[in-house]
Amino acid sequence: MTGPDDGYGVASLPFGVFDAGGGRHLGVALGDEVVDVGALAVARRSGLVDVLDASSLNPLLAAPPEVWREVRADLREWLGEPRWRSTPAARAVVHPRHAVRMHLPFTVGDYVDFYASEHHATNVGRILRPGTAPLTPNWKHVPIGYHGRGGSVVVSGTPVRRPRGQRKPDDEPPVFGPSERLDFEAEVGFVVGSRTETGQPIPVAEAAEHIFGVVLVNDWSARDIQAWEYVPLGPFLGKSFATSISAWVVPWDALADAHVAPPPRDTSPLPYLVDPHDTGLDLDLEVALNGHVISRPRYRTTYWTPAQQLAHLTSNGAPTRPGDLFASGTVSGPVREEFGCLLELAWGGQDPLTLADGTRRSFLLDGDELTITARAPGPAGSTVALGPVTGTVLPSDPSRPARATSPTTGGR
Amino acid sequence: MTGPDDGYGVASLPFGVFDAGGGRHLGVALGDEVVDVGALAVARRSGLVDVLDASSLNPLLAAPPEVWREVRADLREWLGEPRWRSTPAARAVVHPRHAVRMHLPFTVGDYVDFYASEHHATNVGRILRPGTAPLTPNWKHVPIGYHGRGGSVVVSGTPVRRPRGQRKPDDEPPVFGPSERLDFEAEVGFVVGSRTETGQPIPVAEAAEHIFGVVLVNDWSARDIQAWEYVPLGPFLGKSFATSISAWVVPWDALADAHVAPPPRDTSPLPYLVDPHDTGLDLDLEVALNGHVISRPRYRTTYWTPAQQLAHLTSNGAPTRPGDLFASGTVSGPVREEFGCLLELAWGGQDPLTLADGTRRSFLLDGDELTITARAPGPAGSTVALGPVTGTVLPSDPSRPARATSPTTGGR
Repeated sequence: MTGPDDGYGVASLPFGVFDAGGGRHLGVALGDEVVDVGALAVARRSGLVDVLDASSLNPLLAAPPEVWREVRADLREWLGEPRWRSTPAARAVVHPRHAVRMHLPFTVGDYVDFYASEHHATNVGRILRPGTAPLTPNWKHVPIGYHGRGGSVVVSGTPVRRPRGQRKPDDEPPVFGPSERLDFEAEVGFVVGSRTETGQPIPVAEAAEHIFGVVLVNDWSARDIQAWEYVPLGPFLGKSFATSISAWVVPWDALADAHVAPPPRDTSPLPYLVDPHDTGLDLDLEVALNGHVISRPRYRTTYWTPAQQLAHLTSNGAPTRPGDLFASGTVSGPVREEFGCLLELAWGGQDPLTLADGTRRSFLLDGDELTITARAPGPAGSTVALGPVTGTVLPSDPSRPARATSPTTGGR
Repeated sequence: MTGPDDGYGVASLPFGVFDAGGGRHLGVALGDEVVDVGALAVARRSGLVDVLDASSLNPLLAAPPEVWREVRADLREWLGEPRWRSTPAARAVVHPRHAVRMHLPFTVGDYVDFYASEHHATNVGRILRPGTAPLTPNWKHVPIGYHGRGGSVVVSGTPVRRPRGQRKPDDEPPVFGPSERLDFEAEVGFVVGSRTETGQPIPVAEAAEHIFGVVLVNDWSARDIQAWEYVPLGPFLGKSFATSISAWVVPWDALADAHVAPPPRDTSPLPYLVDPHDTGLDLDLEVALNGHVISRPRYRTTYWTPAQQLAHLTSNGAPTRPGDLFASGTVSGPVREEFGCLLELAWGGQDPLTLADGTRRSFLLDGDELTITARAPGPAGSTVALGPVTGTVLPSDPSRPARATSPTTGGR
C-alpha cells in the first residue's frame, strides 16, 4: 500500500477488469494493489457473488443502484478494516497493480459525446468559422451531442494508429491518406448502469440513480478528416477510429464531496433541464504530452452537467442499456493553460505549442504519448484519483495493423 | 405453404427470431411457415447446431462467411426436397407464421445511417436550405453518414411513441413538447456479420464477405427536433427515439440475382471507393400509409453501394462487431412517386399528400400505420421478398410509456 492520499484510498475503490495470469476478473484498486472482488466474494460466501465474480463490469452495471451501494458499502467496511489482510481470504485476492494487465472494464453499448464546455465550443467556432458567431443559436438551449462508435472504445494503454481518410487541401481535389491533423480531446465520461425502456425518459432529478461511475476519456480526433466530412450530418470517421477510456471506473458515490454548481448562466434552461442536485464536479484534469504537462483543464468550468446530459439524451424516449457511455466533450477552461485539445492549444496550427523539451506541436506526431489524469476532493480532506487514460500514436501503416485490445498494466 | 412466387421460396430463406410459446428460437421463413432451424439441426444431429440452436442470430453472425454459406446450402437442399416434410424431424420444427411472435433478430452493435441517395440529398437541400447549392461540396466524394443509436432499434410491429423534444418556432424561444413533424424514412439496411479488429479496414472488393444480410429499415425522424439541434454536430434526438427493422433478415447470397451497377456518375470516387462487384441492388420498395400505397422507391437509383459504404465506414481503421448495422439513408428516386419520406412527398409541408381515402398528410398523425415492403429478382424468374417493416404511431403521453420490444407476428 502507498500513502493515505494517493487518491486510491478506501473512499475511492474504482472498479476495473484485470488479468493476473488467470483470465479476466473484476477488481477494485486500493493503493498500489488490486483486490479481486469476485474471489473475495466467493471466499466470504457473499450474496453478491453473482455480480462480482465476473469477467466484466456489465453484470454489476445491470443491477439496480441499491446493489451498487450495497457492494460499495460492504467493500469499504471490509477493506477499511486493517485486519482483513490477516484473513485467509486476503492472500488469494490481492495482486500488485504493476503486475496485472488491465482490460476494457465493460462492453460499451451506445456512446454519446457531448459538446458541453462553452469555452471549447466558443474557441472551436472562432478557429473553424471565423467571422461568424462562435456559438450556434441553439447552444445555450440544447446540450449539443452526437452518437460516436461504441465498438471503437479501447482501454487506456492501447496504442492508437494514425487513421487514414479523406481530406481536402485548399483549392485541390480531396485526397486519401494518413491524417495530418491528429488531435486528442480531454474529456470526462459517465458510465450508465441501468436499463430503461423505450419511451421512459430519465428525469434530470433522477439521473444520478442511473450513472454508475466516471472515467476519463481521450476522444482522439482527426481534424482534417472531420473538417471535410462533417457538413451536414456531423463528425463521423474523424472520430470513430478510436476513443480511449481509463481502466478504472470511479463510482459516482465516491465523488459525493466533489459536487459543485455549474457556472452561472444568462439563459434559463427549459424545465426538463433544470438540475436540482448540482451534479457538476470539481475535477482537476492534467494533460501530459510525452511526460510534459501541457494543460490543466478544470471540469467545474463545464456548462452542462452530467444530469442535464442524461436527461436530454433520453428526453425523446430513447432507451439506455447497461454499459452505455456518454462523455462531456472537450473540457476547456477560459485560458490557454486550461484548453483541452491541441486544436485550441495551438489555435488551429497558427500558434504551435512549445513543450518543455523544446519541441513544438500543432498536432500529434507519431510516437507521441498522451496521458490524462484527474483528481477530485474526497471525504475528510482526502483525494480521489481518476485515470490515467494514456495512449501512444502509432504510424499509419496498413501493413502493420494495430491490435484491438492491447492490454496495459494497472499501474499509474 | 403458399404459391411458388410469394417471395418466400426456398431460394430466399430469410432468418428471424420467433416465439411459438416456447421461448425465442432462430428460424427461417418458408412460404407461410417458419422452420425452427435450431430444432431441425438438433433432430438431424447437424454439426451446425452451435450457431443454429440459438435465441438470436448473433452466434451465426459471428461465424465466418463460409459457415453462413454452409448453413444456407444445407437448408436449401433439405427444405427444397419435398419429402423432408414426411420425416419425423419436420413435425416438431414447423409453425404457421401467423401464429408466432417475432422478436428483434439480433443484438445491434453500432448503427450507422448513410445519406446515399442523390435524389434524397438534393431534395432535402432544396427544402431545408433554399437558395444554396442543394448538395454539399463533399457529397460526391464522401459517402456521408453518421452514427445512430443501436439501442433504439426495434423489430417491425413495435408501436412507436411520438417523441417529445425541443423545437424552435420562428421568432420565438424554443419549446419542449411532442414533435409536430414526425416522419418516416424508407431505407435498406445491411447486417454486418464479421468481427474485424481496430486498424484493419475492409477493402471495398471484400465488403460482401462481411455483409450477412439485408433488412428494410424505417428510420423514424422528428423533423422539428432535428432542425433545431443538428448544427453543428448532426442529427441526434430527432432520430434516436426509434429505428424499426424488418423481422426477417434476407441473406446477402439470396440477392445474387439482384445485383446492378449504381447510377452513372460524373465524379470519379477515390480508389478505396471503387466497387468492382456492382453491389447495387435491384429492390423495388413499396411504402404504404394506413394501407394506401404512397410511394414506390427503387433502391437501384441509390448513388453509393453497400460495399462503398462499408469500405468507407472502416477506412479509418474502425472495427466491426457481429450485429453492426448500416443503412442506406432514405431511398428516393427522381420523381415524387418514388420519394422515400413525407418531408419530400409533401415538400416540407408546402404540398400535402392526399391519400386514397381523401385525408391529407404533411407529417404523420397519431394512429398512422406505416409499412415498407420490397421485392427483388431471385433465380430463374422467382422473387425474393423483403420486409415488411411496419409500425403504428402512438400519441406522446409520458404517463403511458411504450413497451420496449412489443412483439409482432411473423405474417406478412
